[in-house]
Formats: sequence, structure tokens, C-alpha cells
Amino acid sequence: MSNVNRQIILKSRPQGMADESNFSLVEAPIPPLQQGEVLIHLNYLSVDPYMRGRMRDTPSYVPPFALNHPLIGGAVGEVIESKSAKFKKGDKVLGFLNWSDYSIGKEEELHKIDPSQAPITTALGILGMPGLTAYFGLNKIGQPKKGETIVVSGAAGAVGTAVSQIAKIKGCHVVGIAGSADKLAYLRDELGVDTAINYKADDVGHALNAACHHGVDIYFDNVGGEITDHVLKKLNRHARIVICGQISMYNLDKPDIGPRPYWHLLTHSALMQGFIVYDYQSEFASGINQLTQWVKEGKLKYRENIINGLEKAPQAFIGLFKGENIGKQLVKVSDP
Amino acid sequence: MSNVNRQIILKSRPQGMADESNFSLVEAPIPPLQQGEVLIHLNYLSVDPYMRGRMRDTPSYVPPFALNHPLIGGAVGEVIESKSAKFKKGDKVLGFLNWSDYSIGKEEELHKIDPSQAPITTALGILGMPGLTAYFGLNKIGQPKKGETIVVSGAAGAVGTAVSQIAKIKGCHVVGIAGSADKLAYLRDELGVDTAINYKADDVGHALNAACHHGVDIYFDNVGGEITDHVLKKLNRHARIVICGQISMYNLDKPDIGPRPYWHLLTHSALMQGFIVYDYQSEFASGINQLTQWVKEGKLKYRENIINGLEKAPQAFIGLFKGENIGKQLVKVSDP
Repeated sequence: MSNVNRQIILKSRPQGMADESNFSLVEAPIPPLQQGEVLIHLNYLSVDPYMRGRMRDTPSYVPPFALNHPLIGGAVGEVIESKSAKFKKGDKVLGFLNWSDYSIGKEEELHKIDPSQAPITTALGILGMPGLTAYFGLNKIGQPKKGETIVVSGAAGAVGTAVSQIAKIKGCHVVGIAGSADKLAYLRDELGVDTAINYKADDVGHALNAACHHGVDIYFDNVGGEITDHVLKKLNRHARIVICGQISMYNLDKPDIGPRPYWHLLTHSALMQGFIVYDYQSEFASGINQLTQWVKEGKLKYRENIINGLEKAPQAFIGLFKGENIGKQLVKVSDP
Repeated sequence: MSNVNRQIILKSRPQGMADESNFSLVEAPIPPLQQGEVLIHLNYLSVDPYMRGRMRDTPSYVPPFALNHPLIGGAVGEVIESKSAKFKKGDKVLGFLNWSDYSIGKEEELHKIDPSQAPITTALGILGMPGLTAYFGLNKIGQPKKGETIVVSGAAGAVGTAVSQIAKIKGCHVVGIAGSADKLAYLRDELGVDTAINYKADDVGHALNAACHHGVDIYFDNVGGEITDHVLKKLNRHARIVICGQISMYNLDKPDIGPRPYWHLLTHSALMQGFIVYDYQSEFASGINQLTQWVKEGKLKYRENIINGLEKAPQAFIGLFKGENIGKQLVKVSDP
């Protein structure tokens, strides 16, 4: 290999919806490894909606991306050089890595993954951050009970598909909201969701009335905006609202204005809680065990949408906001 | 006594702010007592903001008041006739009673109160519904810890004054928001609130920045609207928002529109929960014990604002929304 590396940098901060002009593919030298570091050849990288927040120059739960520096995201790859006693050449690892062919990782920030247990892509999806997000958000905040009704927005995404199925495992009546006929068919026919609503084609308020005869006990929200406005009108007493994502407003450059929700919470003694998956980091091992078991038992299915080539990463990222993907969107950087 | 009784009925449903034309003082006969009922001569009745919701013909956590029937609210009075084995003539009782000189109560819906323990008015205030609302909302949802910063809106009201003091007892830095110089002086000088903000005179955003150097851990909200919009910008990670009241919108006849709050909750893993005091009914006895002890120890002060005459009840109720009262607003119907 040469010591020159392709990488994707943030060239400018998006205004509204990101477009490809905000990104640039450049070449840069690979710096020498320091003690405790390894050099990783990326196999897959993950594009995730939360990354849009890091493209803004405003404080959030993670610091903003720097301009003219590589994007950083979840990725899996192979160790090709190691100055760490914890990792050796040939190990497959998961970490937050540069969007580049080769990336340097610090040993304390990497996790070894076992390709004999599951395809390595699952470490970025159903057995990784999105799967754990679904698992902990639903169980810790949603606290599903048999027979309850749950509404899931963004139901066809990486998190939503996992939430919908875990809620079925828990015995809930599951109503999924998504944005295409293909997604609805997948939710109903492959994942066993009870009712699927197309927010682009259906009257969401009427559709929710028809789907939730006993009201809404849990709302798992990946979306926000007007869909949330509709769901909040259907709350039962002691409803739980899991605020996981707000993809409807990530590209807004003006305030997100709508009905204030407080009256709904007050009159239904309802709970609404935001979270990030790292709130439950101490329990990740048990979460991965449970998810792995469900996958092996065939109770938890997953779909991956893989686009080929590092240079396609911006396009894959932008596609998240156009509702193009079902399940987990990945970018293949090299053959594993 | 005659068997004719003055009572205040709801003559029409308020549009926007209630006014005296929505109410009427009428006379009506007192029906004969049934088995299990007692006749009560009211001493004091309570006017509370939540009653505005019952004046609307829309579902809420309590059913709407019927037109041309007496208003019903918390009241204390003396049993003057009893067809119940549980109550005898001369007993002082608390219950939800008609706004009238005399009201019939069912034995299973009344509580005996002991005038030797505390003034009977406190059963409608600091040792009653408002005190318990403050106690359970703050402890169960707010979960105050020593050194944390709490913001209380509607801080000079019956609930707010109790919340502010209980938060001080728990070792919090307390910032109270209220609407007059008198209220601010009371909060600071008599209740020991650390900073008091006048939302009518101050720039609330700037004042919160100055008062909350370490951000906001707990927001106890009696008000909603723009004050809430400001406070949510100051949340710390794992902040708790107690939705107790929304007085800013009780008189709105249009939707309550403003910034959607979900992004703030998401990025701070914050919890927001609505409640009504009856969610904690099984623990009322222990709550009253604790509140009584704090009152006896001088740690929990209270102020009552008493207006004389049943005919003044509508005026007292309307005054709640004009910000006229400090502490608990009561109407004296007869000498106890």
C-alpha cells in the first residue's frame, strides 16, 4: 500500500439539506502510528442521521465536525498494522473512524469483533449502535407491556425496524409509520407490524385513529415534527414517549415551530424522555447478547442497504434524508 | 336555616379569559339527605387554575362542568346534618363540594380534618392538594439532589411557593419566576429563593443566563408558553422537567404554538413528565405527615389570600389568571 489515503472531508457546512458540494474527496498522507494506535483498512462505514447535527457549528451531545477535516463515523475494518498489545494484524475492529480508505484508531476506542459470530456489517446495525438504540430506548424508556399499543415513526429505518420487532416480541400492538409503499410492505409482510401508515400518502391523523382503537401507550419517535403532533393527540394515561431522533428537523435552518406538547403530557400523566445510546453504555454487553440471541432465533430480522465505494459516502448520507433506505444504510469501502 | 341555598353556577363557557358574566349566583332548594350523605356548611372554598379546563366542553383528566349547574371544587366546612356513621354534626370535613353555602357530600368522598392540628384552611393549601402537588411532583419527577439548580415558574402561587421551599430544604439552588415586584420580594426575602425573575419586567432569557451559571437540572413548570421556551435552552444533561400546570394557555382559544421542544430533550437525555397529584394518592398520608412536620419546624411557610363571600368566588377565580394572588387563594363562605 502507498502511504497516501483517500478521505472525505467536510468542505462547507450544509444550509438546509446537505448536498454533495458540502463534501470533497481528497488525498492525504497517513501519519506514522504512535504507541497504542493501530492502522485500519476500512471495510464498511455507517451513515447515520445524527451526523447531520455534527455538521452544524453549534453545541450538541457530540462536538461539531471540523471544516476541511475528514468526517468521522462508525466503521468496521481490518487491522493492518498495530502498535497496540490489544490488537494484532488481521483483527476485525469496530470504532469511530475517519471516512477514508485507511484510518488510525486508538486502542482504548476500538472493539474487536468476531466475524465467526455474525457478519461484520451487523456491528454497525442490528448488533451495533442502531440495534442497541432500539433495545435500550424501548426497554428503558418505553417499558413495553403485553397488549399495549406502540407507534413507531421512521419505522423502516435501522432503529425503527428493530424497535418494531422488539415491540412485537414483547407482545405489543405495533403501528409503524414510514414513507413508501415498499417500506410499508416490508414492515407488514416481513416484520409482522400490525398496521403500517404511509405518511406521504395517508392522512396520518385518520390513519392513527383507525390503527389505535385503544389509544397510544408508547410512541418511539425517530422523526418529530407534524407526525409527532398527530401521535400526541392519541396518548393514553401514563403513556411513554421515547425521543430517539428528530430527522424531520435536522435540515431545518429555522426554528422548528408547532403545537407545544405540554398540555398532552399534563392531562395524561405522560412521560417524554430523550436519550442517546451511550446513556446505557454499561449495559451494552447484555444488550448485544439479547439482540444476538433474537437474531439467531429468527425473531429479529434486519436488512442492510450497501452502496459501493468510499466516494459514494456523501450520496449515501444524503439519501437518509430523502427516505431512500430500508433498514441500515452502509457504504462498502473494501472487501472484508 | 332555610332549605334555600345560594350557589354559583356556570352560566356559559368562557371564550378566552373567563369573566364574571360566565357565572351566576342563584338560589336553589337543598334536596333531602340520602343514606351515607352529610350536609355541610361551607367555611372556605378553593379556587384553582385547573378548574378553567373543566369549564371547556372537551375531555381532560376530569369531566367538564355542566352548564347551569354549580361549580365544584375543593372546600372545607362543618357537618350540620349527617346520615353517615362516619361523620357527626360538628365535624370539619374536606371534599369536592358545590360552590354554595350548603353542599351535600357522600361519606366515601369526604375526609375528616382535625382543627387542633392546623388551621382548617391549610387543608386546601399547604397541607392539601397544592402542597401535595408540589411535594410529589418535585420528589417523584424532579428528584432534587443537593447542589442542583431548579427553576420554578409560577413560583409565587400555591404550588410554586411550596416547590421553592422544598427545593431549598433539599439543598438546591432555586430560581423562581413570577410576575410582580411584591412576589419577587416575597420569594427572596421570606422564602429564601436564591434568584427571583420578574417575567413581566425582565428579559427572561438574559435573567436565566445570569441566574443559572451551572445550567438547569430541574424545571418545575406551572406556566408553559414562552417561559418554558426560555428555560429549555438552559437544560443540563439528564435534566428533569415537571409539567404541573400550563396557566399561560388555559385561556387560549387557539392552538398553543411555539418551538417544538424535542431537540432539547434529545440532546440532553432529558425527561419531561406530566402528572396530576392523584397519581400519588396511595402516598398522600406520608406526604401530609412530611409537609406538616416541615410547617411545624418553620421550614415551610405559606401565605393565604382570603376573599370574603361566596358571591366573590368568580372574581377570586378570575384573579388567578391575572396574577393577583401570592400563595393560596381562598374564598371564605362562612365563619368556621
